[in-house]
Amino acid sequence: MSEAPIRTVFFVSDGTGITAETLGHSLLAQFPEGKFRQVRAPFIDNIDKAIDCAAHIREATAADGIRPIVFSTLVNETTVAALHKADALFLDLFDRFIGPLEAELGQRSTHAVGRFHGIADSMNYKNRIEAINFAMAHDDGVSNVGELAEADVVLVGVSRSGKTPTSLYLAMQFGVKAANYPLIPEDFERNKLPGELHKYRDKLFGLTIAPERLSQIRQERRPNSRYASLENCRYEIDSAQKLMRRENIRWLESTTKSIEEISATILQTVRVDRPGF
Amino acid sequence: MSEAPIRTVFFVSDGTGITAETLGHSLLAQFPEGKFRQVRAPFIDNIDKAIDCAAHIREATAADGIRPIVFSTLVNETTVAALHKADALFLDLFDRFIGPLEAELGQRSTHAVGRFHGIADSMNYKNRIEAINFAMAHDDGVSNVGELAEADVVLVGVSRSGKTPTSLYLAMQFGVKAANYPLIPEDFERNKLPGELHKYRDKLFGLTIAPERLSQIRQERRPNSRYASLENCRYEIDSAQKLMRRENIRWLESTTKSIEEISATILQTVRVDRPGF
Repeated sequence: MSEAPIRTVFFVSDGTGITAETLGHSLLAQFPEGKFRQVRAPFIDNIDKAIDCAAHIREATAADGIRPIVFSTLVNETTVAALHKADALFLDLFDRFIGPLEAELGQRSTHAVGRFHGIADSMNYKNRIEAINFAMAHDDGVSNVGELAEADVVLVGVSRSGKTPTSLYLAMQFGVKAANYPLIPEDFERNKLPGELHKYRDKLFGLTIAPERLSQIRQERRPNSRYASLENCRYEIDSAQKLMRRENIRWLESTTKSIEEISATILQTVRVDRPGF
Repeated sequence: MSEAPIRTVFFVSDGTGITAETLGHSLLAQFPEGKFRQVRAPFIDNIDKAIDCAAHIREATAADGIRPIVFSTLVNETTVAALHKADALFLDLFDRFIGPLEAELGQRSTHAVGRFHGIADSMNYKNRIEAINFAMAHDDGVSNVGELAEADVVLVGVSRSGKTPTSLYLAMQFGVKAANYPLIPEDFERNKLPGELHKYRDKLFGLTIAPERLSQIRQERRPNSRYASLENCRYEIDSAQKLMRRENIRWLESTTKSIEEISATILQTVRVDRPGF
């Protein structure tokens, strides 16, 4: 069997290219044996830039000995035409989907360039920025537990169980205000939730993690510490799970899950009282 | 002209639904006059869940008086078939793009469920988590400037110019390690970059913002303070721009840009020395 050649993959957009890249990554993940070299081409918003981009596509063909794959979200027809002068497999988001949508909605699309954030999204955008600021201000416990009234979600779990990246992702992607609150050995000794967390039980969501993995993560931070020892990690995780079970807190195991998966699961479980949820 | 009815839009996925949602948002932004109610349906990974989801689609049809629009990234054919028993405009990512990709690559796709993070992505995933931790640890200045050696990008700008959300987005989306460093009045008096930032000039990127907008943002934090006054914001922005110009730092105006746009622009400008860039 001959080895598959390396393919260059372009993500071409008149805006940031985030959509083209997200689309492309999902599709390429279905071909785990493929070898891909990725090139981002954002802000291709006029014909000169499209001509340049077509030249890069031709160069990649020459270098690889095979034509590239191009995920594109260009909306302007002249720009598209200039790009298509190069040879490639073009997988064009708007080309495939805008037609059926126009027919279904009985409306012409605006063909507006770089409309990743449409008018409908501007409220969402403000929510997202506010939520990021909130997550930053309420990372790893809060001095004034009353501020948790404003939170949509409060993540609890031992140190390094994944609370911080998850709360930031919830904010960034969904505009959800997530605070996080560590469970520490003193909480286990008292065997109750810290501070006034019990007041916000509906918003609580627990993260747990395999002790072996936790120990590994903590070793990178504080090598050979008691904090990172497998024995201590086992004790903390075991105590945290007992506490969460007794307090009836919903939780999940983060060990083999991505922050995207953890976040999507939380949003299915915790009710967010805001439009859009 | 009759008012367009509200349409329910479903984002259906066997994984997190992030791809379906990103795709859907980009497309719907082309129809700014449309009124859409959005429903997330992640983790539809077996036939029972697909039958449930089809029931929700039928309920939405009954409630709206018009069939919904469904953005789907399901890969399993039986699940897809169960979903398609409901009536809707189905815009199916895999259905449209997997065929051409299989033909082009000469490989069958795995049709693996929930492969948002394929094998090829696991390194990227680790980079992203590390980058998030890095951004958190190097937000708003660092005590030990030597740690900046590890940064891919160092954002500079006055307080509240957008450095924090941008560095978190760079980390989360691209796995880029971004530190950020505030420019404060003392820097302007000395008229030079703080600390040893000049050593890392290649990694520096400046953010600036319209004084009016800055004053508005700061007012929300500290109402009626000198910090938030328009006069002071004008002085700080003016001084920061002079400093950046003199030090030859590339910068952009963040006022009307989203964090996605700012981040994509930074990645076009600052060279990140890692595979994938």
